[in-house]
Amino acid sequence: MKPVKVGVCGLGTVGSGTVNVLRRNAEEITRRTGRPIIVEQIGARRDNPDCDTTGINITRDIFDVVNNPEIDVVVELIGGYDIARELVLKAIENGKHVVTANKALIAVHGNEIFAAAREQGVVVAYEAAVAGGIPVIKGIREGLTANKINWLAGIINGTGNYIMTQMRDYGRDFADVLQEAQELGYAEADPTFDVEGIDAAHKLTILSSVAFGIPLQFDKAYTEGISKITPLDIEQADELGYIIKHLGIARRTDKGVELRVHPTLIPKDRLIANVHGVLNAVMVQGDAVGPTMYYGPGAGAEPTASSVIADIVDVARTMNTEYGERVPPLAFTEESLDEDSGILPMEDVETAYYLRLHAVDRPGVLARVASILSEKGISIEAIIQKEDKESEMVPIILLTHNAQEKLMNEAIREIESLVDICSEVVRIRVESLD
Amino acid sequence: MKPVKVGVCGLGTVGSGTVNVLRRNAEEITRRTGRPIIVEQIGARRDNPDCDTTGINITRDIFDVVNNPEIDVVVELIGGYDIARELVLKAIENGKHVVTANKALIAVHGNEIFAAAREQGVVVAYEAAVAGGIPVIKGIREGLTANKINWLAGIINGTGNYIMTQMRDYGRDFADVLQEAQELGYAEADPTFDVEGIDAAHKLTILSSVAFGIPLQFDKAYTEGISKITPLDIEQADELGYIIKHLGIARRTDKGVELRVHPTLIPKDRLIANVHGVLNAVMVQGDAVGPTMYYGPGAGAEPTASSVIADIVDVARTMNTEYGERVPPLAFTEESLDEDSGILPMEDVETAYYLRLHAVDRPGVLARVASILSEKGISIEAIIQKEDKESEMVPIILLTHNAQEKLMNEAIREIESLVDICSEVVRIRVESLD
Repeated sequence: MKPVKVGVCGLGTVGSGTVNVLRRNAEEITRRTGRPIIVEQIGARRDNPDCDTTGINITRDIFDVVNNPEIDVVVELIGGYDIARELVLKAIENGKHVVTANKALIAVHGNEIFAAAREQGVVVAYEAAVAGGIPVIKGIREGLTANKINWLAGIINGTGNYIMTQMRDYGRDFADVLQEAQELGYAEADPTFDVEGIDAAHKLTILSSVAFGIPLQFDKAYTEGISKITPLDIEQADELGYIIKHLGIARRTDKGVELRVHPTLIPKDRLIANVHGVLNAVMVQGDAVGPTMYYGPGAGAEPTASSVIADIVDVARTMNTEYGERVPPLAFTEESLDEDSGILPMEDVETAYYLRLHAVDRPGVLARVASILSEKGISIEAIIQKEDKESEMVPIILLTHNAQEKLMNEAIREIESLVDICSEVVRIRVESLD
Repeated sequence: MKPVKVGVCGLGTVGSGTVNVLRRNAEEITRRTGRPIIVEQIGARRDNPDCDTTGINITRDIFDVVNNPEIDVVVELIGGYDIARELVLKAIENGKHVVTANKALIAVHGNEIFAAAREQGVVVAYEAAVAGGIPVIKGIREGLTANKINWLAGIINGTGNYIMTQMRDYGRDFADVLQEAQELGYAEADPTFDVEGIDAAHKLTILSSVAFGIPLQFDKAYTEGISKITPLDIEQADELGYIIKHLGIARRTDKGVELRVHPTLIPKDRLIANVHGVLNAVMVQGDAVGPTMYYGPGAGAEPTASSVIADIVDVARTMNTEYGERVPPLAFTEESLDEDSGILPMEDVETAYYLRLHAVDRPGVLARVASILSEKGISIEAIIQKEDKESEMVPIILLTHNAQEKLMNEAIREIESLVDICSEVVRIRVESLD
């Protein structure tokens, strides 16, 4: 069969990884695909010393690539929102299939991009946008087609998981680990996207759409970062049988879809609680299959390239197929996407909670806290009150049963207003994931 | 689009699960597939009270189904070798696509079946044959296309993993747990296929073909069961930082492909070491992606149905596609399958070992054992010698570095011939999985 001709836009980490792997494993890939995948052109502002581009046409203008009539598939690896959007829409307009690793682009502009792709009858594939090298989009879109998916939960930001792992293993502070991670190149100079959960929310938005058949709704995602987590909370969680992970959680409920990224206590014996360092994992619970999990490297040049190339091969296999016989971009056919299924405001979400308060060590404090919770209908599962002979202040740790976030917010405000409570109440959500 | 008409052969656990899930999730599945999946006919010797077959044509002769001109896809869920083979070959001859959950059939007769399917231009899909509901065949065949896969290792028999987990958690004997598992219906009356590793070897054979692009070679797989594992070994492994799992391992080496099922010590901190009970997991290591893992229920009515239906939907999407543009049955195009890449005989495999011996508590025993190993070039990583005040016999535990199986066999024979060694040497292989 005829070779598939690819144009790669962007020659950073993932771009060079993609070109390198396509070259190194050309024979293996052709044996699988039944036809060669040829990099016809690369568009990049500068060369990359990690990438052997011998024999490949290089242009400094990425728009040359999308306008090149020889090219079947445009691979967008420049990142960011605006130019990437323009580039991808232009490629689609020119009748080219698109493969992208850009989570921000898909989460924010995906609905528009998929509509344009449908009009032109081309494929837009984005496996690499979620959890790097793990084929989790394929797993959900194709592997779990038979299921009504109830919920999914993922460790989908490697930097955040690296920081949480270091904090737990060595009792270190967040700021300290972050600084080291930046020095080692694991974290960006501006770490906001990673540690504040925005990157995870991009990926979670995409996962929720392919799981539940709803349009992409990034602006409705609740996002909370890990910068306020302390070694003390990690230690207390451990004593209670939990590990704290920064999770993206999407759940289908009668009232709407939960879409939330926040630090979460999960029982230590859950498999996902044992996913450490920069690795990623996504649990998906379907009504027929039960719990499944997909694990692997969530970032890096070659892991991400692995997914980019898998997408290119998928495109090669379906470019001659009728549009309606291809896997729909968001797993469900466009006309069946559930436009009415709203994202539940965080205030309406129900979950269990870990609370940590610092109180003056006087009789009656705990009783007053318990009574506030009880008035809101929040029941307590466990209490740890620590002795501290050095100080008049004692930390009190509470685990609650499920409660509505709105009522918990009210309870926390009332607790904080008690005279014997000396600082803000630390609140971390708890999920059993069973 | 036109509905896809399915004929289900076999109405046991998986057959009834498939019919039930297709009915319950019909709307969800149609929203994904873009066309309904209709069960046109069921062939089964008897009805199943767990399955609502209202409105479905039922025949007692499964061959009616493969001869029914209305049917597009035959779903083979009768199990076993001979009749299943005949049924599937007849279906192919009649131009029907086939979906099967039958690991024995694919492992033993797959090469013949895929050749026939190619001739007729039909699809034979078998996701449900390996690891039940986990989309691991899809993960390897399509998700990891970019990779040269180096090795894979899986817990691919739920019954065996349940037994090993119970033995470890409660210090119970193999025979005791097996009997209970049989009473609970987790293990068959004749447990040979599960506990002796034959079922796992079927699945491993299939995994190795899709990972490395080699023909199915079940007869070359090395198979060792778990019936000789004792609570003492599990405890000793634990002390050394390991868990014993019954693993299927396939590895590409310069000398050939390793294909082996046996109890294995793996470091406790590996994610797969934390896969307990009836659950399954497969680790796959690709040169670009690194380590990945796929986890979930490896058996059961609806988990297996989940994979069967995912295959039916895949068939629906590619039945109008040219043969060469479909995913090849064994991941690599037929003409590129590596017929010469032999399976390495077990004697040539290199791995690390755990050895347990019982010796008379006399000076010099350990020195003689160490010198036998040293003469074979086998170096020792750790030794535990237990005190036992009650007995003159002491257990000695050894961990070795990598050694060739053949040399280890020789060393064990020599050790067993020492006068101070009182029983057979227990030998369990050790894998680091990194």
